[in-house]
Amino acid sequence: MKNKINIAIIGASGYTGAELIRILLTHPFANISVLTGDSQAGKDIGDVYPHLRFKGLPKLIALEQVDFSGVDLVFCCLPHGTTQKVIAALPEHLRIIDLSADFRLYNVETYAKWYGHAHQAVELQKTAVYGLTEHAREKIKNARLVANPGCYPTTSSLPLMPLLAAGLISHENIIIDAKSGVTGAGRSSSQANLFSEVNEGVKAYGIAAHRHAPEIEQNLSLVSGKEIMVTFTPHLMPMNRGILSTIYVQLSAGKTVDDLRTQLEKTYGDEAFVHVLPAGVMPSTHQVRGTNDCVMNVFADRIAGRAIIVSVTDNLVKGASGQAVHNMNVIFGFPEKTALELTAVFP
Amino acid sequence: MKNKINIAIIGASGYTGAELIRILLTHPFANISVLTGDSQAGKDIGDVYPHLRFKGLPKLIALEQVDFSGVDLVFCCLPHGTTQKVIAALPEHLRIIDLSADFRLYNVETYAKWYGHAHQAVELQKTAVYGLTEHAREKIKNARLVANPGCYPTTSSLPLMPLLAAGLISHENIIIDAKSGVTGAGRSSSQANLFSEVNEGVKAYGIAAHRHAPEIEQNLSLVSGKEIMVTFTPHLMPMNRGILSTIYVQLSAGKTVDDLRTQLEKTYGDEAFVHVLPAGVMPSTHQVRGTNDCVMNVFADRIAGRAIIVSVTDNLVKGASGQAVHNMNVIFGFPEKTALELTAVFP
Amino acid sequence: MKNKINIAIIGASGYTGAELIRILLTHPFANISVLTGDSQAGKDIGDVYPHLRFKGLPKLIALEQVDFSGVDLVFCCLPHGTTQKVIAALPEHLRIIDLSADFRLYNVETYAKWYGHAHQAVELQKTAVYGLTEHAREKIKNARLVANPGCYPTTSSLPLMPLLAAGLISHENIIIDAKSGVTGAGRSSSQANLFSEVNEGVKAYGIAAHRHAPEIEQNLSLVSGKEIMVTFTPHLMPMNRGILSTIYVQLSAGKTVDDLRTQLEKTYGDEAFVHVLPAGVMPSTHQVRGTNDCVMNVFADRIAGRAIIVSVTDNLVKGASGQAVHNMNVIFGFPEKTALELTAVFP
Amino acid sequence: MKNKINIAIIGASGYTGAELIRILLTHPFANISVLTGDSQAGKDIGDVYPHLRFKGLPKLIALEQVDFSGVDLVFCCLPHGTTQKVIAALPEHLRIIDLSADFRLYNVETYAKWYGHAHQAVELQKTAVYGLTEHAREKIKNARLVANPGCYPTTSSLPLMPLLAAGLISHENIIIDAKSGVTGAGRSSSQANLFSEVNEGVKAYGIAAHRHAPEIEQNLSLVSGKEIMVTFTPHLMPMNRGILSTIYVQLSAGKTVDDLRTQLEKTYGDEAFVHVLPAGVMPSTHQVRGTNDCVMNVFADRIAGRAIIVSVTDNLVKGASGQAVHNMNVIFGFPEKTALELTAVFP
Repeated sequence: MKNKINIAIIGASGYTGAELIRILLTHPFANISVLTGDSQAGKDIGDVYPHLRFKGLPKLIALEQVDFSGVDLVFCCLPHGTTQKVIAALPEHLRIIDLSADFRLYNVETYAKWYGHAHQAVELQKTAVYGLTEHAREKIKNARLVANPGCYPTTSSLPLMPLLAAGLISHENIIIDAKSGVTGAGRSSSQANLFSEVNEGVKAYGIAAHRHAPEIEQNLSLVSGKEIMVTFTPHLMPMNRGILSTIYVQLSAGKTVDDLRTQLEKTYGDEAFVHVLPAGVMPSTHQVRGTNDCVMNVFADRIAGRAIIVSVTDNLVKGASGQAVHNMNVIFGFPEKTALELTAVFP
Repeated sequence: MKNKINIAIIGASGYTGAELIRILLTHPFANISVLTGDSQAGKDIGDVYPHLRFKGLPKLIALEQVDFSGVDLVFCCLPHGTTQKVIAALPEHLRIIDLSADFRLYNVETYAKWYGHAHQAVELQKTAVYGLTEHAREKIKNARLVANPGCYPTTSSLPLMPLLAAGLISHENIIIDAKSGVTGAGRSSSQANLFSEVNEGVKAYGIAAHRHAPEIEQNLSLVSGKEIMVTFTPHLMPMNRGILSTIYVQLSAGKTVDDLRTQLEKTYGDEAFVHVLPAGVMPSTHQVRGTNDCVMNVFADRIAGRAIIVSVTDNLVKGASGQAVHNMNVIFGFPEKTALELTAVFP
Repeated sequence: MKNKINIAIIGASGYTGAELIRILLTHPFANISVLTGDSQAGKDIGDVYPHLRFKGLPKLIALEQVDFSGVDLVFCCLPHGTTQKVIAALPEHLRIIDLSADFRLYNVETYAKWYGHAHQAVELQKTAVYGLTEHAREKIKNARLVANPGCYPTTSSLPLMPLLAAGLISHENIIIDAKSGVTGAGRSSSQANLFSEVNEGVKAYGIAAHRHAPEIEQNLSLVSGKEIMVTFTPHLMPMNRGILSTIYVQLSAGKTVDDLRTQLEKTYGDEAFVHVLPAGVMPSTHQVRGTNDCVMNVFADRIAGRAIIVSVTDNLVKGASGQAVHNMNVIFGFPEKTALELTAVFP
Repeated sequence: MKNKINIAIIGASGYTGAELIRILLTHPFANISVLTGDSQAGKDIGDVYPHLRFKGLPKLIALEQVDFSGVDLVFCCLPHGTTQKVIAALPEHLRIIDLSADFRLYNVETYAKWYGHAHQAVELQKTAVYGLTEHAREKIKNARLVANPGCYPTTSSLPLMPLLAAGLISHENIIIDAKSGVTGAGRSSSQANLFSEVNEGVKAYGIAAHRHAPEIEQNLSLVSGKEIMVTFTPHLMPMNRGILSTIYVQLSAGKTVDDLRTQLEKTYGDEAFVHVLPAGVMPSTHQVRGTNDCVMNVFADRIAGRAIIVSVTDNLVKGASGQAVHNMNVIFGFPEKTALELTAVFP
């Protein structure tokens, strides 16, 4: 365990960058050395994020200005599609945690199909480890490049993976109806995400077309040894943070909802950030706001043989920056909970 | 067609009562003669609902004070369970539209099972007509007592009924994931519905236990001639109004999503308040806020043979008071659109 | 009174344009003939505003494509600064109601100072009538060009003008603390107005620098015969619609809060859209949402000789499109309330 | 400095109780030993506050069940008016920080006037220290009973006290227009604070009648040596947390806005939780959400001799539980920042 590592956040002017800073400010073994933001280079981070003023943080600089020689770890928070070339060009000595989708799909053809262009760093992709922390600790420890999971895949895969691995549910007919806050869309100007367009209403988007679907399917297929397809419908909620996934599954023959809950408790009983609620208690995104927790429960449907799983996370924390810091802790051998023992800000 | 009818609203201090007033104020053939509200009796409605001040409305009185002799129609907006005895005691000459759930289930045993007590007006129940307007016009015309449908059943049944009737989708494996604004819970004081408890979060409630499930199943079973059970999960959204139902269905052999849309267009092409969107266009509750519209669309899933239906309404209008006025128009032979040609207040 | 007039809305893709359409759809003497939106030309309005689909409206076209020969009235909803040249080039036979700020300030030097460029239609400015309907009816009737008032000026001037005119309050030391919903900022993409930037917080903006200050001062100075300066601080609220102005004033010697209320009741007693509440009753923006009403009240401060006025409007209706239709009704001799007898959509 | 103190939170089922727990969970020298909640006695705190589940906290018990022998400090979070008798009956060895208003007013006659009943612990009142931390450190250190300041008084007094003490602003004509989130009203069921009643609107309340007015006046009078009266108007915002106070003041002869900012910087330059922004930068409640910070700035009005101060806090933290923990740190000699170096959860 190294004493204190130097960290560079590339693309610090987005929401995941700001959230990394919030978390790392309390980390006793982390030193935020570099913040980049090309369009905001030269600015104080407090001019870009007022809540980060008065924190003694470095100024934003352009990526090309960065001296990486003293840096140990890079968090890369650039938009999807722009990241592959940037990471390919980083010095060899760096450990990298990439919060974009650029290295999440092991199959570069699947990537090309969903992202509309050929993968631009195919060799690097082969070395990337998909960093769903609870399910990839050993690989993460030794990875140079961790592909940090997406928010929807994290929220859905955590309950589904152990159930599929244990053969408790059918690999067919899995339906994920997900509800997300607006921060999932990032901080770029956009008419669709104006307050007055989003407030007081709800809509589905990307039906049967959201790029997190193949990522979820990769996770589920790997543990079950079968090619799994899921129905995945994301919805945009009038709230800042939080994802709630309502997941409809079919029980394997002879299995009960209690079997499912028991399996989840067994899988996550020793985990710091994944919690299974007592029978009958409903998860709510309120209880994970600002935290690195994933809270879940399983309910019997009225229709025999069917169950309903509800899983909640904060999309910016467990679904992005919190999980990234968790992965950092694993890589550098820091106690896993360091800087992540957060209590939700409620109300 | 009578020239102008006299209307009593029983339980006018709840949200559906207030919404009836908002709509009826523009109705050229309706005269609001009586407003009751037992706990608020004696008050000006403007003291209870500031937005109804300055409208020349009668004061709130207690139910026992009402002289029904000149009244033609009663809208009953009392809470579920309290309504059966009240309506049973109303004078014979009155037409009644009941916005509670008390007369919606034709089978009084189903009622007893879901509502926890024996039905208290079994004979009256036999005369009640379930008022899903587009599907029950002829019966409504002659009904003395119309049971106005619930908000979730309206939003789900309108798309599902014609598809089941035409045999285009399987009667099995229908999953309704519904998202509702907070007004569905009414105006009673409640910690759970405080602003600070609801805002900035989402949760499921009443999983496999919501009383609108048997109502939906009654609607679907009647048109399909089979006992249908559905999976129904309602969620509470941080917004005032609106329901969005995301419905997962299985196509019948050889049928396509276009067949479904064509059927819906055929069924509702001449309807004033049910609209099918062009292929690919996503419904949003924003577009129906304050209106009597139900807007829907059908999408192909990535999994062959499966489709996703999205249907939106304003729970207080099409899901309650607007549909009630629509039913009133049918009963009294007024043009159906009267007072209901509303444009959404957006943003 | 002409039977039915033809209307062109220039800049129909902004919020005030959409709101004009919502109101005019119920107007028996108005026919929406032309909708322009240069960047959206060729689109169905329903693609731009889903809530306006299914309404039988004309397609959006470019301004240069418009044939104005059959048009009677133009509502101009273009952004501030772009309007002067457009209106100057319109055919002579048109009546024009301009919802921008371009013709509101009678003094073109004041305009130049606050808007940063010389007025581009100085002669036309001389013919413009400032359309605060209740205080300018006679002039509006004969105006070719009505400058429709701003939302903040409307909300503040309606209570203050009669009090100053009657000498009941001091013309010094008037402080207007105004709170507005986000729609006041329009529909242009903007990081600052993203849902996640606005939600769950409040801030002041444009302290001592907002362009509505000189407009308010013009209104107050005209009725009091003195050069009045006010302290004006607008705030951005996490809500779509509504302005609440809290106004701190000093009573003239010997005057009381009751004198103020009496004067307001006298001034507005016969007005359809301005309402003075009973003593002690607090206005709220909820009660005017979606309506053309301005609701106000006056309260005694604990400090002798000081009073607090609270005034509320919907910024998109009374503060923009509703007042514009009111002005249209005045110009064409339609009953003033036509299409404007709206009840708030609450909750 | 004692190593680890034992803490009892009386009234832990309210929002300030829950917020104390959130903060204390990260405090290295604090041990939460007792949580009381009479109406919820016997419940797990996680059943009352889902976000506090899985935190290893004690169960809620009734006040009469508490064994105070091992307890060092009591936080009292009971409603106003119920606290005096409870605190009077607590064992002598306890240090007490009371978050209610019961001991804030030094003058028991002022208390009686504003709270409608005689003070019930007059002798105890004489020993109470008003705990506005930055201005009362020395007294707090030795106090047995600290009256923790109200949220509005904290937000307003922090900027005004040094300016009045230094004679930079007039003690007359101070107008405080305050905007608050809904949590200020607590967690009790209430129709007025239902989501659907508060959302999408703003209103003033308690004009010239709010109980925080005499508390503000006590603070300002003490530092200026004059009886000060202020105009104070609180408003209810559709948001959970945050107070923004817009304060209108008159400069003393010859003084400038820069003089004011300089004084504030001088007063608070070494303070951990009070921050003065650079000239021209606008405070927003977003930047203090979840933190113990008060952020302020001063702006010149267009009217000569007048200034506008904007000050923001999180009403539940700096305005309640954060300040209470700050006071605890002072009393027990812990480093003042302990457990309070919080970064805002934004967005």
